[in-house]
Amino acid sequence: MLTFVGLGLYDERSITVAGREAIRDADRVVAEFYTSKLAGATLDDLETYHGIEIDVRDRAGVEQSPEDFLDAADSADVVFLTAGDTMVSTTHVDLRLRAHERGVETRVIHGTTAQTAASSLTGLQNYRFGKATTLPFERSHGGEGVPESVLDSIEANRDRGLHTLVFLDIDAADEDYMRADTAAGMLADAWDERASEREGIHPGGDRLAVAVARAGSPAPVVRADTLAALAAESFGDPLHLLVVPGDLHHLEREALAALGDAPESALPPAR
Amino acid sequence: MLTFVGLGLYDERSITVAGREAIRDADRVVAEFYTSKLAGATLDDLETYHGIEIDVRDRAGVEQSPEDFLDAADSADVVFLTAGDTMVSTTHVDLRLRAHERGVETRVIHGTTAQTAASSLTGLQNYRFGKATTLPFERSHGGEGVPESVLDSIEANRDRGLHTLVFLDIDAADEDYMRADTAAGMLADAWDERASEREGIHPGGDRLAVAVARAGSPAPVVRADTLAALAAESFGDPLHLLVVPGDLHHLEREALAALGDAPESALPPAR
Repeated sequence: MLTFVGLGLYDERSITVAGREAIRDADRVVAEFYTSKLAGATLDDLETYHGIEIDVRDRAGVEQSPEDFLDAADSADVVFLTAGDTMVSTTHVDLRLRAHERGVETRVIHGTTAQTAASSLTGLQNYRFGKATTLPFERSHGGEGVPESVLDSIEANRDRGLHTLVFLDIDAADEDYMRADTAAGMLADAWDERASEREGIHPGGDRLAVAVARAGSPAPVVRADTLAALAAESFGDPLHLLVVPGDLHHLEREALAALGDAPESALPPAR
Repeated sequence: MLTFVGLGLYDERSITVAGREAIRDADRVVAEFYTSKLAGATLDDLETYHGIEIDVRDRAGVEQSPEDFLDAADSADVVFLTAGDTMVSTTHVDLRLRAHERGVETRVIHGTTAQTAASSLTGLQNYRFGKATTLPFERSHGGEGVPESVLDSIEANRDRGLHTLVFLDIDAADEDYMRADTAAGMLADAWDERASEREGIHPGGDRLAVAVARAGSPAPVVRADTLAALAAESFGDPLHLLVVPGDLHHLEREALAALGDAPESALPPAR
């Protein structure tokens, strides 16, 4: 049996009880932290907490040479750990399908996710979020500034009145995590540029956004303000997220003011 | 301190370790199960597992008379439990804002959600989901069949190539949970009706959908097929969800075939 377990959002205690029991009962535990990582726990913390050894794989160790643990899962209980929920990356789905093809039984134990947290920490309703997008480092997409597709996704959601969750790039190899202030500045500039090129585009700096830092930790930060204001602040340790709200219902507007300290001037009227 | 804790998806072991510790340390535990409930655990299971008494409130007990536990949270540790994640319903956000106004410190401990599970169990990628929608019982919306807004949401997502998660109605008072086969039949009929009224609308019966039953349990069911085929099947105990896929990437198509037993004839070509 190959059991995929999501470690949840933040540290060694973000896992579900069912997930912890699966680890306890496992003959072998494999993990990958290149698609995401726990900001509040080291590998050592995890190994100590669960009383196990964890075989951490890099991308090649998962995608090119998973045969050893897939073989083991044929007769033993192997657990595959990821930060957040499992199966979020195509890598995990691919691994599950490979196991399936070999006739290895698979199981999924879910973890808490940034998507969940972005909604419940900010007070923005989960069914009013459109498609999520990811803001990459310039070096990741090999271009300058913000890819057009990121702005397009946000605008397409906003056209329907919907919020957008913007995942911020993670460079696991260099332990570099995009900050919400950096992301806010990049988005403000990109919209300014678009506004200078096209008619009818609102400039970037005075658009509303919400920075979320350390979701799932005991002390998360939620700050709602204009992109220009957020770009000038600092939100501490990673991981960070950014939400670009669409239309605000009355209660959502209240929540951004109360929980995110949004100034009245930054909030559009409720719809 | 008022701590909102999400119980997660299925039973008493779906909670996070952090959530369990918050319950253990609480002076008082309040819960509501009218917005959602755990299909795999009774109140008694929860009380026994956590070794506590739980004060379960109906809608009036949360929305009209929360003063007693808000007062208590001023000086003691009160935990407010919900199934799934917390803050999914506007009721919870409203409660958090009320606490905030009184100067009561609040905290959120996230739970796993249907949204997470719909993506990770089916192999459909989470960033390719659009806005979610809810299919209500006819008696809940006071109309016949499927509200136009439900079809509109699915079509608006599909126009962008995106998947739609369809939450199925829960009638907590009557312990009645809409089944995925019922939902599939309703959607097929509604699209047939729309096709008979308008040009260029694809009829309902041969549209692809994915039924998900008992997400988060040890034995969830995932079945991908046409709406007509799903309407004729039975997926066992609640809770059920339905996903209406948009465009399928290669790996998503493979996943629906391997994990959802989708017949080749029901799957559109990969894009």
